[in-house]
Amino acid sequence: MKLLIADETIDYDGSQIGSLWAYTRFRLQDDSIVCFRGKCNVTPDHMIDLEDRVMDEKIESPDMIHFIVEHFDMTSLKLAYARQRLLAAIAAEVFKDRGIIVKRSGDDLFYDGGKLSISIASASPVSHKIHFGINVRCDEYMSLEKMGITDPEAIMAVIGERYSAEYDDIEMSLRKSRPLGVYL
Amino acid sequence: MKLLIADETIDYDGSQIGSLWAYTRFRLQDDSIVCFRGKCNVTPDHMIDLEDRVMDEKIESPDMIHFIVEHFDMTSLKLAYARQRLLAAIAAEVFKDRGIIVKRSGDDLFYDGGKLSISIASASPVSHKIHFGINVRCDEYMSLEKMGITDPEAIMAVIGERYSAEYDDIEMSLRKSRPLGVYL
Amino acid sequence: MKLLIADETIDYDGSQIGSLWAYTRFRLQDDSIVCFRGKCNVTPDHMIDLEDRVMDEKIESPDMIHFIVEHFDMTSLKLAYARQRLLAAIAAEVFKDRGIIVKRSGDDLFYDGGKLSISIASASPVSHKIHFGINVRCDEYMSLEKMGITDPEAIMAVIGERYSAEYDDIEMSLRKSRPLGVYL
Amino acid sequence: MKLLIADETIDYDGSQIGSLWAYTRFRLQDDSIVCFRGKCNVTPDHMIDLEDRVMDEKIESPDMIHFIVEHFDMTSLKLAYARQRLLAAIAAEVFKDRGIIVKRSGDDLFYDGGKLSISIASASPVSHKIHFGINVRCDEYMSLEKMGITDPEAIMAVIGERYSAEYDDIEMSLRKSRPLGVYL
Amino acid sequence: MKLLIADETIDYDGSQIGSLWAYTRFRLQDDSIVCFRGKCNVTPDHMIDLEDRVMDEKIESPDMIHFIVEHFDMTSLKLAYARQRLLAAIAAEVFKDRGIIVKRSGDDLFYDGGKLSISIASASPVSHKIHFGINVRCDEYMSLEKMGITDPEAIMAVIGERYSAEYDDIEMSLRKSRPLGVYL
Amino acid sequence: MKLLIADETIDYDGSQIGSLWAYTRFRLQDDSIVCFRGKCNVTPDHMIDLEDRVMDEKIESPDMIHFIVEHFDMTSLKLAYARQRLLAAIAAEVFKDRGIIVKRSGDDLFYDGGKLSISIASASPVSHKIHFGINVRCDEYMSLEKMGITDPEAIMAVIGERYSAEYDDIEMSLRKSRPLGVYL
Repeated sequence: MKLLIADETIDYDGSQIGSLWAYTRFRLQDDSIVCFRGKCNVTPDHMIDLEDRVMDEKIESPDMIHFIVEHFDMTSLKLAYARQRLLAAIAAEVFKDRGIIVKRSGDDLFYDGGKLSISIASASPVSHKIHFGINVRCDEYMSLEKMGITDPEAIMAVIGERYSAEYDDIEMSLRKSRPLGVYL
Repeated sequence: MKLLIADETIDYDGSQIGSLWAYTRFRLQDDSIVCFRGKCNVTPDHMIDLEDRVMDEKIESPDMIHFIVEHFDMTSLKLAYARQRLLAAIAAEVFKDRGIIVKRSGDDLFYDGGKLSISIASASPVSHKIHFGINVRCDEYMSLEKMGITDPEAIMAVIGERYSAEYDDIEMSLRKSRPLGVYL
Repeated sequence: MKLLIADETIDYDGSQIGSLWAYTRFRLQDDSIVCFRGKCNVTPDHMIDLEDRVMDEKIESPDMIHFIVEHFDMTSLKLAYARQRLLAAIAAEVFKDRGIIVKRSGDDLFYDGGKLSISIASASPVSHKIHFGINVRCDEYMSLEKMGITDPEAIMAVIGERYSAEYDDIEMSLRKSRPLGVYL
Repeated sequence: MKLLIADETIDYDGSQIGSLWAYTRFRLQDDSIVCFRGKCNVTPDHMIDLEDRVMDEKIESPDMIHFIVEHFDMTSLKLAYARQRLLAAIAAEVFKDRGIIVKRSGDDLFYDGGKLSISIASASPVSHKIHFGINVRCDEYMSLEKMGITDPEAIMAVIGERYSAEYDDIEMSLRKSRPLGVYL
Repeated sequence: MKLLIADETIDYDGSQIGSLWAYTRFRLQDDSIVCFRGKCNVTPDHMIDLEDRVMDEKIESPDMIHFIVEHFDMTSLKLAYARQRLLAAIAAEVFKDRGIIVKRSGDDLFYDGGKLSISIASASPVSHKIHFGINVRCDEYMSLEKMGITDPEAIMAVIGERYSAEYDDIEMSLRKSRPLGVYL
Repeated sequence: MKLLIADETIDYDGSQIGSLWAYTRFRLQDDSIVCFRGKCNVTPDHMIDLEDRVMDEKIESPDMIHFIVEHFDMTSLKLAYARQRLLAAIAAEVFKDRGIIVKRSGDDLFYDGGKLSISIASASPVSHKIHFGINVRCDEYMSLEKMGITDPEAIMAVIGERYSAEYDDIEMSLRKSRPLGVYL
């Protein structure tokens, strides 16, 4: 799959979770993970998690690193969510490699009890997508700044590379596994 | 999904990766993760990864903790492998919670450069399955013993609980996500 | 799957066939069958069967018992319709258990030549759903009232229980069936 | 789908549940339901339900009417089982039309408390199949003979016709249903 | 599948690519290929290929023969596109049978270096569809007229028949193929 | 996908249609098309088309060019057969580009009324595969030799390249198509 690190700032308003954003914005015609930095301010129209809508949650942050994943191989929600959790786990591993212990709980990351991230996944008839965002600065919640991390874009790039490499490795692995028999 | 911690020792010979083992052995009629302790000695007939067969690899260990996951919701290899990687990531997180830094690379765990685990995933026409095993004792490779961990079965239970809880949480989350629109 | 018998009256206007209604209304995060009583008056915007729309059919009734089924396991229309017919068959069986012979023809129930029910099924990218409604009172068509049935909500509860139990039983059964060979 | 009523007696030994039996025996290249009369004696090698195997059940009867359904549209167990239950429900409806009340419980039919039928469903990588059999004569269990039914082959033909017609009707219905929106 | 040659002229404005057009217009409740003749003028709202939209392409022609294919068996884009290319290949073969060498490149046909056709494919939650159009007259691009073909509707009918026959033949062929083993 | 032109002669005995042959023989861990030259002699055990087995057909030729396609993206027979027909169409187009008119009928190629090729497609739980073979020499049937073609391996390479390029082009195209609406 294709990894793209955006040169420019992009503010996440929820429209980027729409299918084919990576094509429309960057002409990507691959499965892709696009990484960028920018504000977060999701309008209710773009809320995918109905819980947020029902609860009238605000989803906003003045500065985040964002990951937009799009896969076209199957439109299954089950696959979308398994991959979302894997992306969250990879992000936590990247912090661990720097000696920083971030706790993953489902699709959320926590540091020192404070929520560091937001995420959603879903499907359209043509693709499934994941948004994952980590606060760079944030008053209300935990942020990289509060954690003393001063190179958010380096973190961003490593998470993007790891997810992309993980996907490619999976695609290789499943092409050397024979079918299962049945235990009788 | 159902978590079952086996009371008895079970030696893994590769037959347990067959579909419906959990039913035949334990009458489980759920998606399940079965956790047990025992030797590992996979005969070539039961090798799922053709690389092992081609390379004439030995897959053996005198004492391991084992996890056998079976899902019936889809028979897709893509889902099987995404879940396998998630299980490996969860196992690494369980060590991290004890302050022990284990590195995950794909479906393998490493400690201090030594390989600690084995894993495989695949599908039959009725289910997909994952085997994941962690050395308790091992001369050739890394083991819990070498890492100074003396309660392997506690580790085993926590990994089983976490995977099972993660699956249940995913099933909840995907039932409140609306479909994606398209970015135009 | 989850069975929910609504405490309150709910008028069916066709919006309830939308994916995630059970979550938005009742916070259900399971596959579910929600049973309720209320009027029926489907606006053209909510007509799923294009035949109704093309024919400019009215879909209305002053009092019905309603069943809204939602499954997230696959988004296949084939599965949606197989389950719809099974629900209709179950409803007819519930009448039969009371000694009342109701004829099922496809997704319709008939008593004494009069049409007793309406139904539709379809899918979105996140779930598939079934609506099934039985007239309690109705001038134009057959109704429970005309059949002398005075406890529509008891009928409603039994149909809901049976469908839910059938689904759970299927999920159990398919987890003990080995794959098929081929006849040579 | 194709309905075929076999001219000759065929004894069911379990091999007929294998994919492509209808092609090999009758050159059918459609989805099909094949109906025939004959003994039943399933050898352990052909037992699909592991419960039968585990319990060392005997599956035998001196005279049954049999239905072998094969669908090639999807290889999903979920669809196989939904269709199996629908076939069982249809069989019960055929008796009801004669004024005979047969109770369906899952994939089983009961008359006067006695078990009248056997059934199994499963999938291979190319098709999914259902076997459904009703005792014509039987010492141990209920049978058409004990019920006073003297024209088993007429019953057989009607069940076959109904299942086939139901499938065709479903295929028509799903081709006029628009996709679902989401309830917000 | 059903082949329908429209009696009347129909101008293609892009709305015909919507799911269930064949039902709404012609009451077709089969998988179908509908063939008709008319102008082409696709409004941006109906553009499926985002490239056209992004590039602000005009998709218009004063006279074309059109093919609208709709399949309900799976909603996969992969199957939609494989079938689209097959349709394009069949169209080229029909010209070849007349001794006219038309080059196919992906979903496009070329004659003497000039582009003769347009095409798109995609999926909704209920079906997948293909539009394929060949210029009868056209100033800007190649056309049947420029090729000296004076019976466009005969060409149209043969392409429709061939695609329909190919589909039926495939459905037959796949119902006599046993599953694959694995090479060890 | 990966194109591999084998350096060595390989005789096709039917075992090569097994899943994972390309991995076991060449360590390919991609979707692939492997092209090679060699005899053809399929033993009954490896016959996938039950018609051949039933008819006790011989599938043999002293010299063929062979194509083995393996895809891991879905295990659907429908996709396997759509791609098989596309491969046959591509082969015919390669001849056409040389000015040689070969007729394709389903998965068969004919020249001057003589059958030039054989083909089969099917699926296992891990992949779907296609074998396509063209006679280089053959007494009984048509062959490249009889057609005056003296560079069979050049033909073979071009067909392999075209199929591989077609697949890659499809994967690109489907990643810029928005979902379909419904025609109302």
